[in-house]
Amino acid sequence: MAQQADITAMRRAVELAARGLGSTSPNPVVGCVITDASGHRVGEGWHQRAGGPHAEVHALREAGVLARGGTAYVTLEPCNHTGRTGPCAQALTEAGISRVVYAVGDPNPQATGGADTLRAAGVEVVSGVLADEAEAVNIAWLTSVRHGRPFVRWKYAATLDGRIAAADGTSRWITSAESRADVHRLRAEADAVVVGSGTARADDPHLAVRGVDAAVQPLRVVVDTEATAVKPGARILDDAAPTLIAIAEDAETALPDVVRLPRAGRGLSVLALLDALHARGVRSVLLEGGPTLAGAFVAAGAVDQVVGYLAPVLLGAGPAALADAGISTITEALRLDITDISNIGSDIRITATLKGA
Amino acid sequence: MAQQADITAMRRAVELAARGLGSTSPNPVVGCVITDASGHRVGEGWHQRAGGPHAEVHALREAGVLARGGTAYVTLEPCNHTGRTGPCAQALTEAGISRVVYAVGDPNPQATGGADTLRAAGVEVVSGVLADEAEAVNIAWLTSVRHGRPFVRWKYAATLDGRIAAADGTSRWITSAESRADVHRLRAEADAVVVGSGTARADDPHLAVRGVDAAVQPLRVVVDTEATAVKPGARILDDAAPTLIAIAEDAETALPDVVRLPRAGRGLSVLALLDALHARGVRSVLLEGGPTLAGAFVAAGAVDQVVGYLAPVLLGAGPAALADAGISTITEALRLDITDISNIGSDIRITATLKGA
Repeated sequence: MAQQADITAMRRAVELAARGLGSTSPNPVVGCVITDASGHRVGEGWHQRAGGPHAEVHALREAGVLARGGTAYVTLEPCNHTGRTGPCAQALTEAGISRVVYAVGDPNPQATGGADTLRAAGVEVVSGVLADEAEAVNIAWLTSVRHGRPFVRWKYAATLDGRIAAADGTSRWITSAESRADVHRLRAEADAVVVGSGTARADDPHLAVRGVDAAVQPLRVVVDTEATAVKPGARILDDAAPTLIAIAEDAETALPDVVRLPRAGRGLSVLALLDALHARGVRSVLLEGGPTLAGAFVAAGAVDQVVGYLAPVLLGAGPAALADAGISTITEALRLDITDISNIGSDIRITATLKGA
Repeated sequence: MAQQADITAMRRAVELAARGLGSTSPNPVVGCVITDASGHRVGEGWHQRAGGPHAEVHALREAGVLARGGTAYVTLEPCNHTGRTGPCAQALTEAGISRVVYAVGDPNPQATGGADTLRAAGVEVVSGVLADEAEAVNIAWLTSVRHGRPFVRWKYAATLDGRIAAADGTSRWITSAESRADVHRLRAEADAVVVGSGTARADDPHLAVRGVDAAVQPLRVVVDTEATAVKPGARILDDAAPTLIAIAEDAETALPDVVRLPRAGRGLSVLALLDALHARGVRSVLLEGGPTLAGAFVAAGAVDQVVGYLAPVLLGAGPAALADAGISTITEALRLDITDISNIGSDIRITATLKGA
């Protein structure tokens, strides 16, 4: 009974946390629900943007004096440090919360210890409730903390037989309008959207988010090794969202906002690119590159999750979604777990996540 | 109220029909449920094998005198002709059934007219209940009647990026043991299993059904145009199931059980092959061929349904599932509808069916 109430409240907290996706970096998404001493929900909150109040503070404000003797459900272990805001462990104690239930421990060495602080103050602490769901909603931030680089989600759209275009290069439209709209949601959840020079040259993409309410625009990134794909006047250079062009250290360009990176193979070092993005506060990357760039990311061990939009279409010829990933035999294949399957319009969206990511 | 009872009974009849998949050709699968005058289920039956009693007869036998004044639910319009068994329309009337609900009309010109006969005898007749589900369970037989050739289901197993093997040809195992077991269920449902010379040469496949209770073994067919792939001693030539080797009219062979067919392109005429199989009573084909044979079937307009087992694996190199389908631009792409998505082990199984099939 109590356990079911804990799960229900935590599920709501996970929903609240998801509202912050795309706008909290470099912070995690966090949701919080407060129930009073008799179990009624009296406060809700979520972390909305870095520098703003933490989820617990929003929820405590809504609960007011009703928090006294109540329970706080938090998707992530309450923080113990004073950053731009005060420590949440202390705020919860001062509000008279008598029990804290959290889903996932804080892996950030600067913030961890909140549970210990709460226990020392006499608060009952329970951890691990709905941990899988809370991990999933926060996978980008957790991966970035664990690996010291942004989480990378590779998105592609293909036919059932794995083609991203027909033999003559035509590809409008393989997937449905609903799938294309869904990609804008993925962009809104990401801190940066990355494409390669091939895509920049072929499609002159805009890459900004359209049709998602209150979306924070991601950083638009083109990996343009030779600095030849993005020309002045390219759509990506407008002011709809910030833009960064990654070029080789020895390439020449007149473009502003470039980052120079070491070469690797026929392109740039993927890990150097991710380092540069991480230094700019990027914690999640949506990789929308073509087969070559995606192959370079896979070869660098830098794909954490794959989101494939598969259309019920057969072509039998044309480029494949992924190439040059450095895998030559089946035992070297990159193996993931399917973590979501959804119908999107007439297509199917498959999400597969790296084992242990 | 009455309508919900009709749907519930018909859904059961569809379940019963499915039990006949793979063993009734050249007849359809049919299920029947009989309820008595007060709506209680008193009889069930399904068509089990060609030459055996029809579904209605099985159900009427179980119901006995309780059928009087009752309702018969049948997935297919009751037949009106005397074949190896008597007409079901007459059997239902003689049993005193007062109402017949069927899902799909009989497209077979020799059997149609059952509904009219029933009405003329004073029986209330309702049609179209759960028609989509009843069509789906009988899609092989319905397609074979409508097109005058066997229904063709193409099965493949691939990575998320559409590869059926790694660059070096290794492919054991891309998909899970559960997916491989599920393929045996597809074989059991088919009248014939077809592979090409490439598969015969590379894998020496056995192609018989294993691990499916009471399965009727399908006809094993190899498209071996030059009569060079199947050697004496090949596993497919054992006596676990019947076998047919399709070779070119001018090819030389010492093998028994060959059918000689006209050449087309670099192989044999797909439509001539399907004609030859239809003449042997084959109403459903499971195409397990590699990319080239599958491409020839797609190019011939002879793929009605695709069943893809997709493993959450990335390779970035290696052969694609489908090749040489004669499609060079996106407007020529073969477009289907996704009709089922299932988790099979760690994989996903996608079923896509030709629009209007």
